[in-house]
Amino acid sequence: MTKEEERALPIGVFDSGIGGLTVAREIMRQMPNEKIVYFGDTARVPYGSKSRDTVLKYSQQIVRFLLEQKVKAIAVACNTASAYALPVIEKDCPVPVIGVIRPGARTAVDATRNGRIGVIGTEATVESGTYPEFIHGIAPMAQVLSRACPLFVPLVEEGLWEDPVTDEIARRYLAELMDEEIDTLILGCTHYPLIRETIGRVVGDEVTLVNPAYETARTLQELLTERGLLADHHPALGEVTQYQFFVSDMAEKFRRFANSIIPYGILSAKVINIEKY
Amino acid sequence: MTKEEERALPIGVFDSGIGGLTVAREIMRQMPNEKIVYFGDTARVPYGSKSRDTVLKYSQQIVRFLLEQKVKAIAVACNTASAYALPVIEKDCPVPVIGVIRPGARTAVDATRNGRIGVIGTEATVESGTYPEFIHGIAPMAQVLSRACPLFVPLVEEGLWEDPVTDEIARRYLAELMDEEIDTLILGCTHYPLIRETIGRVVGDEVTLVNPAYETARTLQELLTERGLLADHHPALGEVTQYQFFVSDMAEKFRRFANSIIPYGILSAKVINIEKY
Repeated sequence: MTKEEERALPIGVFDSGIGGLTVAREIMRQMPNEKIVYFGDTARVPYGSKSRDTVLKYSQQIVRFLLEQKVKAIAVACNTASAYALPVIEKDCPVPVIGVIRPGARTAVDATRNGRIGVIGTEATVESGTYPEFIHGIAPMAQVLSRACPLFVPLVEEGLWEDPVTDEIARRYLAELMDEEIDTLILGCTHYPLIRETIGRVVGDEVTLVNPAYETARTLQELLTERGLLADHHPALGEVTQYQFFVSDMAEKFRRFANSIIPYGILSAKVINIEKY
Repeated sequence: MTKEEERALPIGVFDSGIGGLTVAREIMRQMPNEKIVYFGDTARVPYGSKSRDTVLKYSQQIVRFLLEQKVKAIAVACNTASAYALPVIEKDCPVPVIGVIRPGARTAVDATRNGRIGVIGTEATVESGTYPEFIHGIAPMAQVLSRACPLFVPLVEEGLWEDPVTDEIARRYLAELMDEEIDTLILGCTHYPLIRETIGRVVGDEVTLVNPAYETARTLQELLTERGLLADHHPALGEVTQYQFFVSDMAEKFRRFANSIIPYGILSAKVINIEKY
């Protein structure tokens, strides 16, 4: 394959379901020339309440699927998979892989003034301790306070993005972090940017909200530039569709949800049998 | 195998996760001589937001696992699996199989005075139309009003069994059914009996709540009696453990939860790889 051909290959992006679309959206915004193959594991969602072994096994199956689609790089657009699977995947993968946690940690360290950083995420992400680990790798004196928020994902999926119930649950989850006077809060689950307004209202203007999706797309762009892999022109008309979506179940529901997140009409999502990978 | 040996075999019970323990509990109460092999698909929970094909595939894998454990009968202790998979499983299965929907439908028809029956359940259970179908099979003139309640399962799993947020969500979900003047409400998801108090408060004393778990255990007892398969004495000391629990992930979390539902101490749950069945 020529370097030119390699540059024209798509980026693989995956998540346990729909949350990773917030990362795909940032890649579309920041790198409009890139093609994307997105996989959402809608049959086995959520990952956030599962064990390390299970999340690793599922992530490895998805990486095998994406490699079969000839991607030039992979973005693990799921905090839980980044926490539990990335260290193993990185080792074996023939293309560059990035997760969302390291970029999120770096942005938070840049943003904090008082050195007190809050992290919210799934039970698994919080349990893994990966955010504190990465933050302390950059800023050893930072204080990191973590809180699992298991109801945020179902509330987002139920569409209660602006709702008194979501406000009430957010107040409970975030009360302790606020008492600890954090000035920066990492939205450590790709669903959470969708209720950014609610979270912002609860924590107030003094707390900087960090959405790792933005920084992940930026880091990916740097990486592709370094390796000479950045697509240098927009896909021509008649080329394969720029954005392809695959799921393990419920394609139509995914398509509807995706169209409320992604600024381009998604015509279809294809169901594949991920267990065979 | 002698009939005596066959009677001593366990009953297989399965669910997408922990909800089916409410059915296992009823079997324990009503048939204290029986052994149970329980499987909870905790790696792939929830089923209620998945497609028919996926729920069927998962259920068939579990039935194969239970048959390998030499069960004498199978109770599908999950409304979604009963709705989507039971008709197919029944055809091929070498042992008797019962689900929760037919028993629940029969109880509701017996209970209603005004012929207006409400059904609440997962999106998949409601979508399947199985409750209305079975109810109309017995009482063609009954009016059946259904409502999916997707947040009830995460609220139960988060432990908010008695909480103003659960009250508020219940009021929203049930308002329409109350306007339609139902006098009987089927708790069409095995998680819901755990928030029976909340649901009862919202619908008031005039509405009879039907928990299909009770009737399912009764139906199973009738079936085993008819076939001469009812265990006729309590397992002797030194025999294999009376209640065995298997899950596809998160055994310790399952064990803790199970101990809050089951009136016997559960010593352990074993993780198996269900995808290989």
